[in-house]
Amino acid sequence: MVKNFADRLIEAIKTKGNPICVGLDPRLNQIPRFIKEKALEGKGKTPTAAAADAIIEFNKGIIDEVADIVPVVKPQVAFYELFGSEGVRAYEETLKYAKENGLITIADMKRNDIGSTATAYAQGILGEVEMFENEHEVVMPIFDADSVTVNAYLGWDGIKPFVNECDRYGKGIFILAKTSNPSSGDLQDLQLKDGPSVYEMMGHLIDSWGADHIGESGYGFVGAVTGATYPQQASKLRQIMSNSIFLVPGYGAQGGGAKDILNCFNEDGLGAVVSSSRGIIFAYEKLEGFSEKDYAKAARQACINMQEDLRSVGL
Amino acid sequence: MVKNFADRLIEAIKTKGNPICVGLDPRLNQIPRFIKEKALEGKGKTPTAAAADAIIEFNKGIIDEVADIVPVVKPQVAFYELFGSEGVRAYEETLKYAKENGLITIADMKRNDIGSTATAYAQGILGEVEMFENEHEVVMPIFDADSVTVNAYLGWDGIKPFVNECDRYGKGIFILAKTSNPSSGDLQDLQLKDGPSVYEMMGHLIDSWGADHIGESGYGFVGAVTGATYPQQASKLRQIMSNSIFLVPGYGAQGGGAKDILNCFNEDGLGAVVSSSRGIIFAYEKLEGFSEKDYAKAARQACINMQEDLRSVGL
Repeated sequence: MVKNFADRLIEAIKTKGNPICVGLDPRLNQIPRFIKEKALEGKGKTPTAAAADAIIEFNKGIIDEVADIVPVVKPQVAFYELFGSEGVRAYEETLKYAKENGLITIADMKRNDIGSTATAYAQGILGEVEMFENEHEVVMPIFDADSVTVNAYLGWDGIKPFVNECDRYGKGIFILAKTSNPSSGDLQDLQLKDGPSVYEMMGHLIDSWGADHIGESGYGFVGAVTGATYPQQASKLRQIMSNSIFLVPGYGAQGGGAKDILNCFNEDGLGAVVSSSRGIIFAYEKLEGFSEKDYAKAARQACINMQEDLRSVGL
Repeated sequence: MVKNFADRLIEAIKTKGNPICVGLDPRLNQIPRFIKEKALEGKGKTPTAAAADAIIEFNKGIIDEVADIVPVVKPQVAFYELFGSEGVRAYEETLKYAKENGLITIADMKRNDIGSTATAYAQGILGEVEMFENEHEVVMPIFDADSVTVNAYLGWDGIKPFVNECDRYGKGIFILAKTSNPSSGDLQDLQLKDGPSVYEMMGHLIDSWGADHIGESGYGFVGAVTGATYPQQASKLRQIMSNSIFLVPGYGAQGGGAKDILNCFNEDGLGAVVSSSRGIIFAYEKLEGFSEKDYAKAARQACINMQEDLRSVGL
């Protein structure tokens, strides 16, 4: 029997002693120049291939420095897909390298579609895909991420294929509940006729979809995304989804502080993963004493600083 | 000044005499054997590269046969991404080939994220991306799709970056309102406290977001997705969003018939694009008189049959 993803995640958080998730959102204009120059070497390389190579090199540097102190990384696919198929190659390489270095991966893709299409997404991202190789059919993993973010505007039959793959391969999903952005309330905060708001109703749906998939840790593999920028809403969601692990974006650059995220945790001090992207991977631009060459060491220092910040509020 | 996407789309619909969108969802197990065998030729080719080559060959065959009789194609990215970066290469090639053959493309990706990330998606899919090439910065299009489907669960600031690219490059978006799948009602049909349901409220949001972007045709580049399987809801949405073009999936394999989609159109007989995927591209499996070798001709015949079906209800 495969191990429940939530149990793997909770174990990794306990081992590393913090719930930090490093967001790997590699904006090309902020990647150090020496990495970009190296990536441009090689005759006839296309601009997108060079961009992809720069991203891979940059990410590997970060992963090498943080793999022993944080449990999770979350590459945001938009910053890879931006360079087309070459960018997606960098995405595959990044997931693979993170996994080889013992990190749990969250593919931040926010995928969503009707059942038959969601099945294709779920197989490609979390499970295995049927192909052919000469006369023989082969079945192999593609992205092989440990988990993926999904958007449930389409309801249960767009989520079920992901749950099936999670069950089979020991993977997880994080469903958008209350997102961290300024206008997340446009739809999510609307009040429903019979009581709760849209985001709270989404919380109830997520809770019910995950109810049959709770692991030994008491947490299940159907998680939720709740922004650090909305602590009051997080508090309500924590009560609604006591068995779900929250993926909490918005710490740092988006304005969420350590106190703001306390409500995302349960009383056992567990139940959430806190993500920071720009504040960690481009820390060399802001932390004193680091140059471009030390960008990865600066990222490590930013993780240590973040851990101290979280501990200062009792996490 | 760039031409409004809606004007381009309406013009193409009028020229071709129908509002048919061919969904390019190439499931590998349904692609004719002779195409797969050809794709496997070549020493040391990986299974994903062979799958991607088979998809490209299959799609080009379809595009060659339908380009003169339909206005729009819509490749669903899940069926490409399933084969990783190689699959995304097939996606890029498909969009490019469709464009070269005079078809309008809808990238069915249902992307969604916070503002800064949505900007990356919008630039990569619709606009142009900054890169470097030796000492010179280059700016170039990547997917260069004419339009893309998006999910607005995150509200306006996740949509705005797409609207900006549409405005600048003459592109369009289709925002999910009422989707075609059986459990679309889980969230979309919930009744709000002050009157309408969630999907109707989404319709009002879409209408307001598109209000400043109406072209000479009377339609704007902010469109909506409304499933053919929910005619009553489509009727309500048609009233709410009189200036939006509807992308209507669910015709054919999902169960929607010609009568069901009438409500998606305005009284001028315009305002919607009707999509069919499996029913067209794998028509060779069902239409009499066609073999695997004739799969593309069967797809053409299926388009002609669909056009007759639509005309039988006055479209």
